[in-house]
Amino acid sequence: MSAGKVTISPDMFEFELETTDGGARAGVLQTPHGALVTPVFAPVGTQATVKAVQPRELKEMGATLVLSNTYHLYLRPGDELVRDFGGLHGFMKWDGPMLTDSGGFQVFSLGQLRQIDEDGVTFRSHLDGSVHRFTPEKSIQIQHNLGADIIMCFDECPPPLDRAVVESAVARTLAWAKRCVEEHARSGNPNRQALFGIVQGGIFPDLRAQSVETLAALDCPGYAVGGLAVGETKAQMNATLEATTPLMPANKPRYLMGVGSPEDLVNGVARGIDIFDCVLPTRVARNAAAMTRHGRLNFRNLQHAREDMPIEEGCTCYACRTFSRAYIRHLVKANELLGHQLLSIHNLHMLISLMRDIRAAIIDGTFSTFANDFLANYRPTGKEANARTG
Amino acid sequence: MSAGKVTISPDMFEFELETTDGGARAGVLQTPHGALVTPVFAPVGTQATVKAVQPRELKEMGATLVLSNTYHLYLRPGDELVRDFGGLHGFMKWDGPMLTDSGGFQVFSLGQLRQIDEDGVTFRSHLDGSVHRFTPEKSIQIQHNLGADIIMCFDECPPPLDRAVVESAVARTLAWAKRCVEEHARSGNPNRQALFGIVQGGIFPDLRAQSVETLAALDCPGYAVGGLAVGETKAQMNATLEATTPLMPANKPRYLMGVGSPEDLVNGVARGIDIFDCVLPTRVARNAAAMTRHGRLNFRNLQHAREDMPIEEGCTCYACRTFSRAYIRHLVKANELLGHQLLSIHNLHMLISLMRDIRAAIIDGTFSTFANDFLANYRPTGKEANARTG
Repeated sequence: MSAGKVTISPDMFEFELETTDGGARAGVLQTPHGALVTPVFAPVGTQATVKAVQPRELKEMGATLVLSNTYHLYLRPGDELVRDFGGLHGFMKWDGPMLTDSGGFQVFSLGQLRQIDEDGVTFRSHLDGSVHRFTPEKSIQIQHNLGADIIMCFDECPPPLDRAVVESAVARTLAWAKRCVEEHARSGNPNRQALFGIVQGGIFPDLRAQSVETLAALDCPGYAVGGLAVGETKAQMNATLEATTPLMPANKPRYLMGVGSPEDLVNGVARGIDIFDCVLPTRVARNAAAMTRHGRLNFRNLQHAREDMPIEEGCTCYACRTFSRAYIRHLVKANELLGHQLLSIHNLHMLISLMRDIRAAIIDGTFSTFANDFLANYRPTGKEANARTG
Repeated sequence: MSAGKVTISPDMFEFELETTDGGARAGVLQTPHGALVTPVFAPVGTQATVKAVQPRELKEMGATLVLSNTYHLYLRPGDELVRDFGGLHGFMKWDGPMLTDSGGFQVFSLGQLRQIDEDGVTFRSHLDGSVHRFTPEKSIQIQHNLGADIIMCFDECPPPLDRAVVESAVARTLAWAKRCVEEHARSGNPNRQALFGIVQGGIFPDLRAQSVETLAALDCPGYAVGGLAVGETKAQMNATLEATTPLMPANKPRYLMGVGSPEDLVNGVARGIDIFDCVLPTRVARNAAAMTRHGRLNFRNLQHAREDMPIEEGCTCYACRTFSRAYIRHLVKANELLGHQLLSIHNLHMLISLMRDIRAAIIDGTFSTFANDFLANYRPTGKEANARTG
C-alpha cells in the first residue's frame, strides 16, 4: 500500500460463514460500502446504470450488490472521468457494495476484433473501431479508477468445451492473475478493493482442480467460477460446479459469473455459490416478459389483456403493488417505456426476493426442501439464457 | 342523470377565483379527485402513461392534473377495457384530477386518412388502417368510459390562418358542442365529469368572439381555447388570446390546449389562462434536452461531459437532487433509458414548479414583475414547439 492511503478497517472484506445447509451457505462479506449478506444476486449496470432502473428503486427492491463493466466504462465515458466523479459510487449514485468485472470476457467476446498475446489483448472498440490494449495491469488500473468494492482478475474466458483451448486459457489466466495481484498490491488499496481470482477450466474437472489449486496460492479474498454459462448445457454447468466448489477455499466467497436464471440460482446455491450476477432480468424485461417463480410470462400475449391481477401474486415490488397485468400489457403493446421499467423492476425484485428466501431457508436448515419445491413448481420457458453483459 | 348514479357533491366543479393580478388569475377548481389549484400545467399521458414517468413520480414532482387522449385509448386498449378497470384513474393508477381531449384534434390531424361530414368524422386507424367513426356523441360516450374529471367537446381543429376554413370550423364546432352537451346530459354524470366547450376561430378576433358568445349560451363549467399552437406565430397566439379571454366567462376556468413552452405559460397566464397541457417536456427529454428557466440544454453536447453540477441549480427534482450533468450526459451518449427518464422528470418538474411560482406571484400581486424577469432571463432555443399529442 502506498503512502497517503487510508486503511479503512483491518477486518475489511472479512467473510463470515453464518451457517451451511448441505452445500448451501449463508454468509456475510464486509465491504467498505456495508456488510453484504450472501447468497446474493447482483443486478448488472453495464454502463453505470441498471437499465431503466433508478438507484432508489434498486434500494427499494432490496438490491445490495451492483455489478458494472470495465470494458464499457473504459471506452465510455472513460474510467478517469468516473474516478474524478468519486468512482462508480459517486458517478452513478449507488452507495452500496459494487463489483466490476475485468473486461476479459468482453474483449474475448469481440472475436475478430481482438488479438491475444502472452502479455495482453489488443482490440478494436465496438463503438468506433479505435484500437486499444488491455493487459492484466491495465485492467486493474482501470478498476482502481472505477472504485468498486470487489474487482476481478483479468482472465481469458474461452468456450468451455474445447479442451486444448481451455487448457491454454487456464495457464494464461493463472499467469495473468499473478500479475493482477502484483499490480493491485503495487498501486491499489486492498482495504478499499478486494481482488477476486477467477477459476477457469471449462467443463473439465481436472483443469478446474488445477486452476483452483494454483489460484489458491495467491490467497485472494474471494474466487469466481468463470467460463460457464457460455455454451455448455445446464447439466454440464451443474456437474462442473460440483467438481469445482468443494475444492475452493471454504472461508472465502464464491462468485458464479454471468448466471441468473431462477433455477440456476437455486442450483448454484445448492453447489456452494455465494454471489451471482446476470443481465437476464433486465433483458427479459426488454423483451416484454416477466420472470416469476413459476416461469416466464410474455406480456405480448393476448391472454394478459384483461387480467386484473398483479404480474405475480404475493410479490411486493412497485409494479405488483400498483398495476394490473392488463395495464402492463397495454404499455407493452403501445411501446411505452413504462412497461419496460415496470417489468425490469419486477424481474430484479423477483430474483432478489428469491435469494432472500433461499438465505432464510439455509438459516432454517430447510434449503433442500425449499430447492426441491421451487424446482418442482418452476417451468423454464424457452432458452433461459444467462449472460454476462447487458 | 339516470337512476343509480351517485351525486358526489352539489358543489362539484365549482371554480373559485382566489385572486387576480392584471389578467393573471389564481383559482381553485373542485373535482371528484380533489381540489385543483390554478394556474396549472398538466403533463400529457397520451396512452394512459406519461412517457417514462411513474404515477408516484408525478406525485413527487407536484403534478396535479394529468391529460390523456381519447383517440389513442379508443384504439388501444379500447375505452371499454379502460372502463372495466375503473376508468383511467383505476387503469393507470393516477388518483388526482384528469382531463381527456375529445379526439377531435387527433382525427383532424390524420389528413388523408379522414373524411369529415356534418355528422362526424370517418377515419382510418394509424395503427392498422381499420375504419372508425367519431361523432360528437361517440366522443362523449368514449370519454364517459375513460372517466376523466374534465372532458372536452368534440371539435374541428383546422389550421388557424385560413379564414374560410376556420369560419366553417367555428360553425361546425358550435353545432357539435350542442350535441356533446346533450349527450353528456343524457348519458353522463355532470357531477362526476365536467364537459368543457372549445372556442375556435383561428387568429381572427371576430370569429373568436362569435365562438365565445355562442358557446357561452351552453353554460359549460369551463372553456378551452383551441386551434392555437398549430402553425401561427407566438405573436399571433398572444394577440389571439388578448382578443379572446376577456370575452370568456370570468367565473369559469380557461384552458389553453396543447401549449407548454415556458414563455408561453407565462404569456398565457398573463392573458387569463388557467390550465395548460403539452407533450413538450417529455418530447424534449426524448431528444436528450433539458428545459430550464434560462432555456434548453442539449445533453448530447460535449460541454456537459465533465460538469459536476445538477441540470439546474436550485431545482428540487429527483434528477437534480441526485445526479450530475456529466452522468446524465453519459446516459444520453450511451443510449441508456435512465437518461430519458431523468430528463422527463426534470422537464415536467420544471414546468410544474414554474407554475407554482407563477401562482405565488399572482397571490403576492407581483406577477407582472415575475413575468418580466422571467422573460428577460429566458432564452428560447430553436423552435419551442408546442404539441397536443405525444
